[in-house]
Amino acid sequence: MLTVAQARDAILTRIDRLGTERVSLLDAPGRVAAEQIHATRQQPPWDNSAMDGYALRAEDVALATDGHPVQLEVLEDLMAGVMATRTVQQGQASRIMTGAPMPPGANAVIRVELTRSRSRDHVEVLEPVPVGNDIRSAGEDQQVGDRLLEPGKLIRAAEVGVIASAPRSFIRVYRVPTVAIVATGDELVEPDEVPHPGQIVNTNAYALAAMVKEAGGHPIILPIARDTREALEEVFQAAAAADAILSSGGVSVGEHDFVKEVLEQLGVQMGFWKVKMTPGKPLAFGHWGRVPVFGLPGNPVSSMVSFELFVRPALLKMSGRTRIFRRMFRATLAETVQKRPGMPHFLRVTLREVEGRWVASSTGAQGSGVLRSMSRADALAVGEEALTRIEAGTELWVMPLDDQWGMTDIRPV
Amino acid sequence: MLTVAQARDAILTRIDRLGTERVSLLDAPGRVAAEQIHATRQQPPWDNSAMDGYALRAEDVALATDGHPVQLEVLEDLMAGVMATRTVQQGQASRIMTGAPMPPGANAVIRVELTRSRSRDHVEVLEPVPVGNDIRSAGEDQQVGDRLLEPGKLIRAAEVGVIASAPRSFIRVYRVPTVAIVATGDELVEPDEVPHPGQIVNTNAYALAAMVKEAGGHPIILPIARDTREALEEVFQAAAAADAILSSGGVSVGEHDFVKEVLEQLGVQMGFWKVKMTPGKPLAFGHWGRVPVFGLPGNPVSSMVSFELFVRPALLKMSGRTRIFRRMFRATLAETVQKRPGMPHFLRVTLREVEGRWVASSTGAQGSGVLRSMSRADALAVGEEALTRIEAGTELWVMPLDDQWGMTDIRPV
Repeated sequence: MLTVAQARDAILTRIDRLGTERVSLLDAPGRVAAEQIHATRQQPPWDNSAMDGYALRAEDVALATDGHPVQLEVLEDLMAGVMATRTVQQGQASRIMTGAPMPPGANAVIRVELTRSRSRDHVEVLEPVPVGNDIRSAGEDQQVGDRLLEPGKLIRAAEVGVIASAPRSFIRVYRVPTVAIVATGDELVEPDEVPHPGQIVNTNAYALAAMVKEAGGHPIILPIARDTREALEEVFQAAAAADAILSSGGVSVGEHDFVKEVLEQLGVQMGFWKVKMTPGKPLAFGHWGRVPVFGLPGNPVSSMVSFELFVRPALLKMSGRTRIFRRMFRATLAETVQKRPGMPHFLRVTLREVEGRWVASSTGAQGSGVLRSMSRADALAVGEEALTRIEAGTELWVMPLDDQWGMTDIRPV
Repeated sequence: MLTVAQARDAILTRIDRLGTERVSLLDAPGRVAAEQIHATRQQPPWDNSAMDGYALRAEDVALATDGHPVQLEVLEDLMAGVMATRTVQQGQASRIMTGAPMPPGANAVIRVELTRSRSRDHVEVLEPVPVGNDIRSAGEDQQVGDRLLEPGKLIRAAEVGVIASAPRSFIRVYRVPTVAIVATGDELVEPDEVPHPGQIVNTNAYALAAMVKEAGGHPIILPIARDTREALEEVFQAAAAADAILSSGGVSVGEHDFVKEVLEQLGVQMGFWKVKMTPGKPLAFGHWGRVPVFGLPGNPVSSMVSFELFVRPALLKMSGRTRIFRRMFRATLAETVQKRPGMPHFLRVTLREVEGRWVASSTGAQGSGVLRSMSRADALAVGEEALTRIEAGTELWVMPLDDQWGMTDIRPV
């Protein structure tokens, strides 16, 4: 039997980054850059005012005080978007808005709050300012040729702003995987169909599709494949155009031969593994040409936990990401839990913060068919292999199941 | 001047959750449930096998050992999706696949590994099993009428599975806001236009649109409004159909009068505030009927930091979320940083983990026009109001700027 780490590493070494595509600025967030972007202009293009106030010569106001203000002649109003027409000379100033280009001759800005104005034509300056005061220098953000973005960088809002400033409207990024989801089995019906006796609803395909989306991929839910050679062939042929294939069910000891036979006939080399873990255990992995094929267990919880551990990092790697694992942290178990020895147990837990420490509580029944315990869970806590019970108070590693633990309803300072 | 907390609270108390809509299962992830969902069937619908093996009567194999196996007659093959046709009686068993309904008469399953089979018709059982062994009981996951999902719950993959099992294909959720983004100013051009002297690229609208998306909203970037009364009126009229309006620029001391005048004429009650913070400071907030209007500063960094602190929690609240704040944590500052006293400074920092502790390093130039320092940043570190410098080694609160700090390139255990 493989350990979780062995199975994960065996999969990841066989997963490649996908190719690239050009997307618009607005489709870029969450994607990984596949090109270097250089600045083609300096930013800001010219010295400009960081404040609403007056552009002046610092030497003219060196002795200004509230009691003895320095009066300057106001030449013009400088708005953002327009270059100055007049040069500021001794005893002069121009009224200037935030972001407006500095007028020639001026070497400082004084903010409006530090002035008094009794007419449009004159201003009284109440304080001295140093040379360069409240001026944003040309090129302070970017010089022509600066590298603004490196390949491999995850694009967020700030990167979108930087790309726009380059200026660029499109950017080359790594593709995100299209993932075909194949549910097989005569026992399955879709949620909007009426089950016959012995049939159950195909929940896995929808939960897996949601997980694919959460990992940034595009899920394609294929119609349920019935347990005939023809139906299986047909659905896998339909899946062939995807970047990855997930099948759910058909990987445990008794069932796998049939799926295996069809896949081998199609030219897919699958390894059927047992992975030392609860829930989960059966897992199949192989390649169909360049397309990785994941055979997940049919139990809803096993299928989701296997996705978390094996498929999610693979999809993120295909998308060009390097941070592909959820950051684990330590939490204290609230109550004693029984476990099967000889396997690590990925225990579904809720998390709460108590005096700066995380406390994990079991979500109750941990059977691998109990999907609701997954819905109650914030995270998986890893119960060590050797243990038969985990005592309350034990510190465990926990792996969050989503980004919500980074969010809180407690108002920040 | 308002504190950050005062401004945020004043905004949030005036923000309501939006109405509801019905979305399909596949559009539900990331949305907040607005209805209660009850189970209409029990799950699993019948006792079924948790393993591939044999359904039998536990009493028949009580004395089985490897040396003295118990031989049972095999009645039929039970596949998932089909009800049994034969009753298991003394000395009999049925071959059963994982998930297949239990046949009448049987009260336990023995997994295939604990048996030997020399023919289709007979099986040798090598170990005793207790009553109920490897059976998943009918209703173990859900009983008819069980509450599967409560209003207010954030929908993730597990919830999608649970909704499908109800069974339901659509669910009522809170709407997410459509957010109109208004950039005003004669100095702005779009990234695909050539700037005249004095003009700069409208990066804010794109960075804000990315932030709106990241908060789950739908951004609408309106054409740049020039600095005329008619242009401003036109763009705000176009924004009126949105659930929220963001304007960028036009809120500092010198500029705001014009925008203010237009907004008041349109019937918008805006408060123009100064908020005690760097970067940021000027902020406008008001309502146009039910539509909140946020006036953000024009500086790229100020505009993004103000969005993070004031707009993002508001958009999440509109979407029905309760965890609307990013969880802050403590990090140690790597190098001494100067700051302006009298204001909290939201310092752009990178984060790295060193021996289980977070270390924050300044991203360099902290000017509010330096967008690239935002692109280098993982988080904002809060420099306390009173300080004029923050010594290396000081512990600060940090607020991550995205979900990436929950991800790592370090392989989990």
